Parts: sequence; C-alpha cells; structure tokens
Amino acid sequence: MNKEYAIRYENNPVITKDDLPFRGECAFNSGAIEHNGELVMLVNCWRDDWRPHFLVARSKDGFKWKVSDKNMTEMPKEYPYHPDHGMFDTRITWMEEDLCYYITHNVSSHLGGRINLTKTTDFENFENMGFITGVDHRNCVIFPEKIDGMYARLERPAGEGDIGDIYISYSPDLIFWGKTELLLEKQTFWWESHKIGPGAPPVKTDKGWLIIYHGCRQHMNGIQYNAGAMLLDLEDPRKIIGKMRGYLMVPEMDYELNGNVPQVVFPTAAIPHGEEDELKIYYGAADTCIALARASISELVEKCLEGGPLKYEYQHRDKVND
Amino acid sequence: MNKEYAIRYENNPVITKDDLPFRGECAFNSGAIEHNGELVMLVNCWRDDWRPHFLVARSKDGFKWKVSDKNMTEMPKEYPYHPDHGMFDTRITWMEEDLCYYITHNVSSHLGGRINLTKTTDFENFENMGFITGVDHRNCVIFPEKIDGMYARLERPAGEGDIGDIYISYSPDLIFWGKTELLLEKQTFWWESHKIGPGAPPVKTDKGWLIIYHGCRQHMNGIQYNAGAMLLDLEDPRKIIGKMRGYLMVPEMDYELNGNVPQVVFPTAAIPHGEEDELKIYYGAADTCIALARASISELVEKCLEGGPLKYEYQHRDKVND
Repeated sequence: MNKEYAIRYENNPVITKDDLPFRGECAFNSGAIEHNGELVMLVNCWRDDWRPHFLVARSKDGFKWKVSDKNMTEMPKEYPYHPDHGMFDTRITWMEEDLCYYITHNVSSHLGGRINLTKTTDFENFENMGFITGVDHRNCVIFPEKIDGMYARLERPAGEGDIGDIYISYSPDLIFWGKTELLLEKQTFWWESHKIGPGAPPVKTDKGWLIIYHGCRQHMNGIQYNAGAMLLDLEDPRKIIGKMRGYLMVPEMDYELNGNVPQVVFPTAAIPHGEEDELKIYYGAADTCIALARASISELVEKCLEGGPLKYEYQHRDKVND
Repeated sequence: MNKEYAIRYENNPVITKDDLPFRGECAFNSGAIEHNGELVMLVNCWRDDWRPHFLVARSKDGFKWKVSDKNMTEMPKEYPYHPDHGMFDTRITWMEEDLCYYITHNVSSHLGGRINLTKTTDFENFENMGFITGVDHRNCVIFPEKIDGMYARLERPAGEGDIGDIYISYSPDLIFWGKTELLLEKQTFWWESHKIGPGAPPVKTDKGWLIIYHGCRQHMNGIQYNAGAMLLDLEDPRKIIGKMRGYLMVPEMDYELNGNVPQVVFPTAAIPHGEEDELKIYYGAADTCIALARASISELVEKCLEGGPLKYEYQHRDKVND
C-alpha cells in the first residue's frame, strides 16, 4: 500500500495569481509563519511587467488566504541589480531572543545571486539589513534560536560545475558569517541526486531540528524538484541524526506538474499549526502557485530516525604531507 | 615607443621545478614577503605524484632563491577534499596589529574551491585557522591593516555562468566575514574582459592601496592571463580612486607563453624591496615557474591616478516599487 507522509490539501492551490491585487504572472515559493494568532505569508509573485513583489498575505486557518497590496521588496542599492533579474524565495524565521522576524530572500543579477536579510516585528514595517552572502547563493534559512550563542543558517551555494550541496554557517551578529561546514552532499538518493537546498526554516522538536528541504533529480528533459526531510542534532546541528531515505513529496498533481516550470515541489515554510502535532508545509508548485501539505511532526521525526544518521566516508586517501 | 611599467628580471624565471627538493611538476603562483631582513616565499609546487606542497623558500636579494623542504600544507579535516584536487595560490600578508603573517590559499575539491587561512610568525610553525570562505572561491588577499577597526580582504568568487569579479569583504576577527561589496567588475578593458581576481596583497602607498591583480581575456583557444594595477582609497578601499586602463603585463616571454597552462602571468606578491621606490612583483608564469618583474611604485601610482577612478552606471532602471 502506498503511504504518504505529507498529505496535500484537497483544495490546493491555496494562492494563485488570481489572488493578487494586480495582473501577475505567478505566486510561488513563499515563506510563512504564525504571527498574532494568524498566519502571515510573504507572497513571492511577479507582476505582469515581470517586477518581483513580496506581498503580505494573511490567513486565520492556513487554508483561505487574503493577499494584501503591502509589498516588502526593496531594490538593493549601490549594486548592479535591476528588477528584471528577479528576487526569489522568501523565508521567515521568528527569533525569540530578538523578539523579531528575520526574512531571507534571493536577489539575482548577471553577477550571481545573493541572499538579503530583512527584519520586521509586525509585517508592516521592514528594516532591510542588506546582503548576508556573497554572490552565487540561492537558498538560505535561519535557525529560530542561537546555537551556542551564535546565529546559524543553512545555505546552498550555487557554483560552477557540479555544486549543489547544503552547508551550515554561523554568525555572532547576523552580519558577519563563517565557520561554514558541509552538512549534506547531494547524490545521496535518486530524488536528490542533482542538487539539494534548504527549504523551510528549521522546526524545533524534542528529538532534533526538523528540516524540510528540496532535492532535485535531473532527467533528459530537465529537473524534477522534490521535497525531503532530515533531523539535525539540537545542540550541534552540524550532525544529521536522522534522514528520510525516501522523498517526502514528488510532483504528481497537475498544479505541480504543469506551469511556468514543470515538475516543481519547492517547500519554503513548515509551521506547527492547527491540530496537535500538525505541520503545515507550504510549497511553491511549478513556479506558478502556492500549495499546502500537512504532516504529522512526530511521524516525520520517527521516519527520519528510522532512516538513521548519514555518515560520509571522506575521501582522505592520504595525508598531503606523507 | 613602447613603454613597459613592469620590467622583467633578465634571468627569469627565479624558481623552477629544478629548484625543488624532489621530483616535481611545477612551481608557480606563490606568495612572498619580507621577513627578518630577507624575502620568504611559500612555493606552490606539485610533486610528481601530484601532491600539492607549499615549500618555504628564502632569498637575500630577491633574485636567487633557495627552496627548503619545509612544507606548510595541511589537509583540511572533516571535509571531502583529497590531495588530487589540488591546493593553490599562496598569498602572504604581514599584519602589524597582530605581529604575525596571514597566509591564504585555495583548497579545491569536487564540491568547489575554498580559501584557507594560516597564521605564522616565523615560517617554521604554522597555525591552521581553517576555511574563511564557503565553496567556490579561488583568490583571496588580506589587507595588511585593519580598515576602521575591521580586517578586510579582496576576493573573487567563481560561480556558475559569467561570474568573475572582485569583491571586498570585512571581518571583526578573520573568522566571520560579511559586508561584501562589488569592487571591480570584469569586462572593463580587453585584457580583463573575461575574469578578474585579486593578485598580490595590497601595498600601502601615501596615495592609496596599490592593487596588482590579474585579468583574463578569452580567445578562441583558451584564456590569456594578464596583470593590471589599480589604486584604492586608503580610508575606504571600496573606492577605486585610480586604475591603469592598459595592462601592466601580458604574457610575451617564452616562460609565460609555454608551459602547463600557456599564456599565464599570475601575480601573487608585490613587495617594496631593494632600491628606493622599487616594487618586486612575483608571478606564476604558465603555471610552471615563478618569475620576477620590477616596477616603480610611484610610477604605478601615477599611472593609476592618470587613468582615474572608475564609476559604474548601475542598471537601476526603475525602482521595484514603482
């Protein structure tokens, strides 16, 4: 019997371009979080003139959403980006220690992609903190707590050649980042064999940090974007203590298979919300609309632990100094 | 009349594989600096089994060098690099404030290239401080002084697509880096139209930071590596206050034109040394040997100022929020 661990909402998608306050091309990979008893989303959408907007949307129940015309995008200054290059993929983290939300998103240009950081307490006023990576980063999620007194993030540099792996970095202040280490290399399983990247910001559970991420498979006609789950050690998230061997989701519904970019399930938010133990996973579908799947947090944790830790045999064949 | 601003040493190259204490493949892009009244170089060379070594070499006059068998390379731990992937391009900076030398070099792997930092006071004992960039960096030089209380570096990320520009980053502690800004974009002049990267660590002059860097031109049969010069504001090195429009050097000698990689002049050290106003520029030639060219510091500064500052017209055609 087939068994799914993320159950799609039957009235998917929850937001489409028809929900935008203007003529738009798409509404896709968008971060969401709980705020003041409702859910808030920063809807990553493009107006018909191809201008990227991140519009504030709100929902009481997580199913019905109202997209406002409040736009948080701000053009980076003193840098040769321009709107046609695109801004992508909002992610939102609540930082209890700072009593504020941190928002990451990508800004693309002919010089590469960079991650921008923005701060807000109310989703009305936004403080742009500027770039927190160099060029060639597409995905970045911030942990909702400091680890050993340091901010932490997962990131996926997108470099030349074969690069497409997940790293972890630390920062004393969110401005200067370092101590970057490889967390997960692609090519572990078929559904994540081409590229992987952090998806939703980490969800704290009593067993570890639950990470919903995306993994890509390359085929003869392009790239299929899938979702996976892993569990990181609470104290030291450089350690993968569990990982689902199988995928969490692969594109199979019409709205995931067909659109601006076919075959895309791209998770950007995972929020404990609704029933007890319920995780609401929001994901961009086919770079066209936003969909919802629900999972049991404890079941995902269990599946990760059942898969067990991943251990790499690093190819240290010899010491250099031999 | 042809006029050169960097005069090649007539007995070039100064170090070849024949100077190594073992059978080697090459001795090329190597950092050098003054230490205890002599010059010291960390010779980037490969043994015949392709193992990278950084050997300490010494010279009284900067012309005759003796390469020792002291090797400073150390394999990165807990990371899937192995020797066959290569380690490249030492650069050395004396940091007066810390009374020590900082050495940067690249470590390559199938996951990308990263910059490693090492500290020494005597070139006998080396302290490995680990990686200071994520993947996909090849060139990094550290300023010999803090700028406004911060360490600073020039770097060249090497990303997918068309990336090959010089950036500046800052750090409070050499471990965590940020505030990354574009310094110089490639495609300014023909000899630097394909890629550019920092070469020698910055040289302080009374008019500004003198930067000797490399610039590449792509042609039908590969890439020609050239050298250029620019001058950065002393107080705020994000500002290019002068830049030679023409090249400083293009490959034209046999040892630059022919070797493991043809057509390469790759500067890695620029040391005020010898006569008054003399700059000794060491560069890898054709990825095979190490050569020396001498220049007048004041003349280079003058040429940069004559070229004048570079101003970009960023392509901010519209605000996003219009």
